Amino acid sequence: MPAYATNMRMKFPIVALALEIITIILFGVFVVYDDGKSHGHEPHSNETHHEVKPMDLYPMFQDVHVMIFIGFGFLMTFLKRYGFSSVGVNLLLAAFGLQWGLLTQGIWHLEDGKIKVSIFKIINADFSTATVLISFGAVLGKTSPVQLLIMTILEITIFSINEHLVATVLEANDVGASMIIHAYGAYFGLAVARVLYRPGLRNGHENDGSVYHSDLFAMIGTVFLWMFWPSFNSAIADPGFTQLTAVINTYLSLAACVLSAYAISSLVEHKGKLDMVHIQNATLAGGVAVGTCADMNIGPFGAMLIGLVAGIISTLGFKYLTPILASNLGIQDTCGVHNLHGMPGILGGGNAAMQAAALASSLGFALVGGAITGLIMKLPFWGQPPDQNCFDDSIYWEVPEEEEEENDESLAHADHSKNKAEV
Amino acid sequence: MPAYATNMRMKFPIVALALEIITIILFGVFVVYDDGKSHGHEPHSNETHHEVKPMDLYPMFQDVHVMIFIGFGFLMTFLKRYGFSSVGVNLLLAAFGLQWGLLTQGIWHLEDGKIKVSIFKIINADFSTATVLISFGAVLGKTSPVQLLIMTILEITIFSINEHLVATVLEANDVGASMIIHAYGAYFGLAVARVLYRPGLRNGHENDGSVYHSDLFAMIGTVFLWMFWPSFNSAIADPGFTQLTAVINTYLSLAACVLSAYAISSLVEHKGKLDMVHIQNATLAGGVAVGTCADMNIGPFGAMLIGLVAGIISTLGFKYLTPILASNLGIQDTCGVHNLHGMPGILGGGNAAMQAAALASSLGFALVGGAITGLIMKLPFWGQPPDQNCFDDSIYWEVPEEEEEENDESLAHADHSKNKAEV
Amino acid sequence: MPAYATNMRMKFPIVALALEIITIILFGVFVVYDDGKSHGHEPHSNETHHEVKPMDLYPMFQDVHVMIFIGFGFLMTFLKRYGFSSVGVNLLLAAFGLQWGLLTQGIWHLEDGKIKVSIFKIINADFSTATVLISFGAVLGKTSPVQLLIMTILEITIFSINEHLVATVLEANDVGASMIIHAYGAYFGLAVARVLYRPGLRNGHENDGSVYHSDLFAMIGTVFLWMFWPSFNSAIADPGFTQLTAVINTYLSLAACVLSAYAISSLVEHKGKLDMVHIQNATLAGGVAVGTCADMNIGPFGAMLIGLVAGIISTLGFKYLTPILASNLGIQDTCGVHNLHGMPGILGGGNAAMQAAALASSLGFALVGGAITGLIMKLPFWGQPPDQNCFDDSIYWEVPEEEEEENDESLAHADHSKNKAEV
Repeated sequence: MPAYATNMRMKFPIVALALEIITIILFGVFVVYDDGKSHGHEPHSNETHHEVKPMDLYPMFQDVHVMIFIGFGFLMTFLKRYGFSSVGVNLLLAAFGLQWGLLTQGIWHLEDGKIKVSIFKIINADFSTATVLISFGAVLGKTSPVQLLIMTILEITIFSINEHLVATVLEANDVGASMIIHAYGAYFGLAVARVLYRPGLRNGHENDGSVYHSDLFAMIGTVFLWMFWPSFNSAIADPGFTQLTAVINTYLSLAACVLSAYAISSLVEHKGKLDMVHIQNATLAGGVAVGTCADMNIGPFGAMLIGLVAGIISTLGFKYLTPILASNLGIQDTCGVHNLHGMPGILGGGNAAMQAAALASSLGFALVGGAITGLIMKLPFWGQPPDQNCFDDSIYWEVPEEEEEENDESLAHADHSKNKAEV
Repeated sequence: MPAYATNMRMKFPIVALALEIITIILFGVFVVYDDGKSHGHEPHSNETHHEVKPMDLYPMFQDVHVMIFIGFGFLMTFLKRYGFSSVGVNLLLAAFGLQWGLLTQGIWHLEDGKIKVSIFKIINADFSTATVLISFGAVLGKTSPVQLLIMTILEITIFSINEHLVATVLEANDVGASMIIHAYGAYFGLAVARVLYRPGLRNGHENDGSVYHSDLFAMIGTVFLWMFWPSFNSAIADPGFTQLTAVINTYLSLAACVLSAYAISSLVEHKGKLDMVHIQNATLAGGVAVGTCADMNIGPFGAMLIGLVAGIISTLGFKYLTPILASNLGIQDTCGVHNLHGMPGILGGGNAAMQAAALASSLGFALVGGAITGLIMKLPFWGQPPDQNCFDDSIYWEVPEEEEEENDESLAHADHSKNKAEV
Repeated sequence: MPAYATNMRMKFPIVALALEIITIILFGVFVVYDDGKSHGHEPHSNETHHEVKPMDLYPMFQDVHVMIFIGFGFLMTFLKRYGFSSVGVNLLLAAFGLQWGLLTQGIWHLEDGKIKVSIFKIINADFSTATVLISFGAVLGKTSPVQLLIMTILEITIFSINEHLVATVLEANDVGASMIIHAYGAYFGLAVARVLYRPGLRNGHENDGSVYHSDLFAMIGTVFLWMFWPSFNSAIADPGFTQLTAVINTYLSLAACVLSAYAISSLVEHKGKLDMVHIQNATLAGGVAVGTCADMNIGPFGAMLIGLVAGIISTLGFKYLTPILASNLGIQDTCGVHNLHGMPGILGGGNAAMQAAALASSLGFALVGGAITGLIMKLPFWGQPPDQNCFDDSIYWEVPEEEEEENDESLAHADHSKNKAEV
């Protein structure tokens, strides 16, 4: 397989260490602790006067942190042989991405030439990694860790430009980031997936599916995302009653979304059964769709209507749109991020009046940025896996022997004296 | 099997969507955001003056939220073939239940004809769903999603009546809800289980047991419940030192309970071995039993004594009482909720003086309400599974193929080109 | 096997109940709730005036609680047949240890002859259990529950003496406890492991390895530890900007550590693949190493450099040092705690000037205390497992039948009518 140099021995360590060392140097030049002396980002609330203390947002930050590392990481473990990569590469990309995001977001808000790190800033850094993790879902199983590190740098850099444009120039409101995170991350990932199209996977792949326990691992991700989504959509809202509104709208939208996702899953599936793919993903669409207007006075029933519609659209997308995207447009969207983040993100952006420019900006940056990123990732020396090794941890990870054997259907002849398979 | 119309294709979507749409309409009429203008529910503390801010209780709320969705959901994944239903139907019932609970609890506390949603109110809504999830444990594996949605409506409605009676009319104290949540939920579920008695399962069922990894999934639920129980018992306590007392009593009661549950498990089991059923459940009985008096000055050692006794009673219940309930009284209690929530709940209610009326009220509503609910659930058109399909996800879920085959003991002849089993 | 009386039937229940009852009596004599009347431990901050409310630290406490019970518990589930013991005995030891730690730590800070329990004190009690759980990792799979309860008492008692010496007499700073928790726990455990050396395991053991899903369970532990480590290192820091500094330093050190751990893992492994042992453990070394100086003004880039170095040292330790310790020094360190807690802990202690005495004290107490504890644990009547039953849950737990059969390679002839294996 001359075109697929998947041995990462030199490539990956050099890229990873070089990126980290460059990042540390940039931190040495630009980044200091927030000393509270100036608060350019401090949120204002007309209703209540708040003395903002340095650690006030910390519990919100930890909820978001759990969504990024447990939520996204375990959500993608549904594949039978790709769990190590899902949760492990998720950790790698997010750990690098949050550092990179601190730099590229902070550069727009220098104070005395420095980026002053606060809880508010690290929440936003976590947010910036969410875009990469969404795109990761679209190309899951078909990309190497080196390719994904490259995607991380480019996607977060472009995200920071778009975010600055939307928030500062267009002055659009997107508290829960339906547009600038979810729609952006989804369409960026779809553009990358389109460029990396693999005709060899048109008829599916043996490992592109779940086993019973891998579906349960994925539910850990789903449920943590579902529970903490109110924190995601309210973390950077104005403190006080505005933040409360964002929490309640998200909580209710997600609750209504569960009912419609379950109902439609049963309606469209074989004998009325529920499909774990829908349950793992479409139940979350209410959180995405209510994001942009989470802190607005849409009324509790308004939030629930948004969630209801999001759950329906998302489930129908998984059932009917994903296969069409793959067969007709050459977009092989492993996790169906178009259904969870793409369409609900547009629905969310469209809910709020006069957000058209912000949405167009986010989609434009996503599609153009994603296409260019995809072309760079397609260069032959990043260790992309050949078709037959897609969706298989053992190409980048040491995998315990037994499982290899189960795959090889030769359990009875296992040599139990060794722990690691030599592949 | 004419009596068992388990095809959910029309039934389930129609019931789920109809319930959600009715709920949204009721929210449109009755529910608004809390604007802080009136605080009928505001807790008072004599020791310290607190300005209650809208988001003060949010971290507590998220702990309770994790208990409801991760805790209860994963605790029930111990069954080898019923994990999708455990965590998935748990999500469905709780997502609907919290909406219904907001309505039925809020109706007693209208302000200007409206239910004003606050963090305090959504904590209580989460609490109301706990009763349903406890009862779900009693009938786990033997009921259809439609039956369980019906149980959710009825159980939460009756819960809200009893809660109002206990708190407002009887003026009983039950901060950690030993009686009104745990004992109520357990005996409601046992009454339902009695009505739904299945003679065909007298000799057990092949799938009514665990496998190694399903027991580990269940421990995720156990440990999250165990850790966050201090939040459950203190979330609605008076702020300040009263709340601290509730936290410390619960923390210590649970710690002592672990030691006695482990000791008794080893004492009663084969060759002194530990039994995962006991460890998964009885270690939590200390949280239930200390609930009612968690915010009282019982002393740290008093809390520990309660935990010690609860761990003993609960473990002995699993070992000796559950089989008797099944064989002599026709109560097939899948998760043994009588041992975790029933007896420790009564123990908790009995700890506090003059709570007899509150306990009697909770048990009365539970037993009568549960029996009537069971009769309604027994009607033949809700899609109840036949005996041989009990404890098996594949009757209501699409299940990955491999597991089906493992069950069929024909792993070697798997057709790997398809991902979903056609059952 | 006359030397191995592993039947726990009387031994374990008696030891566990006796310890708990003695503890409850001591609590009855010594322990009361904190009433806020005196605050010997109250932290001071020069920058901001804070009125410390009783529940202020509660969210931090819950993060630490999750690290202790989910983090440590699931991190050790990587072994294929020892998951029940990992998460179950972790719960047992921590539940007892936190009670014992409250007593042994509190005895140095009596107020009116009483230990006044506050959130601050239960955070420290949780911390004291961390030392035991670290040592547990060194002897995982080779010790009985009774042996481990004895280790818990002795290790926490000695820990409390060393902690008092370091904090009060030497007046050393160790906010994140690199020395007094991590280095102490690791070297204590290594000393115990040395005394309990088993020549029969020189050539490994069939069950001393992972399977695919056990590695995924372990990642639950890893990721929760990784996410909440900023809380561990900042929970008892001075409130305000000092605490913020501790959070940011830990967050950044951990992020940098991930990159170097992944890079070195790929560099030293077969064909550049990643090794789950490194990913599960070495990614956390940045949290350990930055502990001592987490609240100091080392600069964000300083924290990242510490994390970078810690990730490198830790990964290299797993690859090259652990085998040497086992073969040359007779130290069989099951989880490699020397690489995660030992060396990074020393690195952390060494980072801060004039901490030499504190480090020496911690190591001295660890090595001498661990050796004595090991000798006591070696007494023949504590139910230590024979070599062939090491790393196997079924010696102390009832284990579901199927897995036994899989192990026996006789899946096809399973008797599905029984749920528990008789071993």
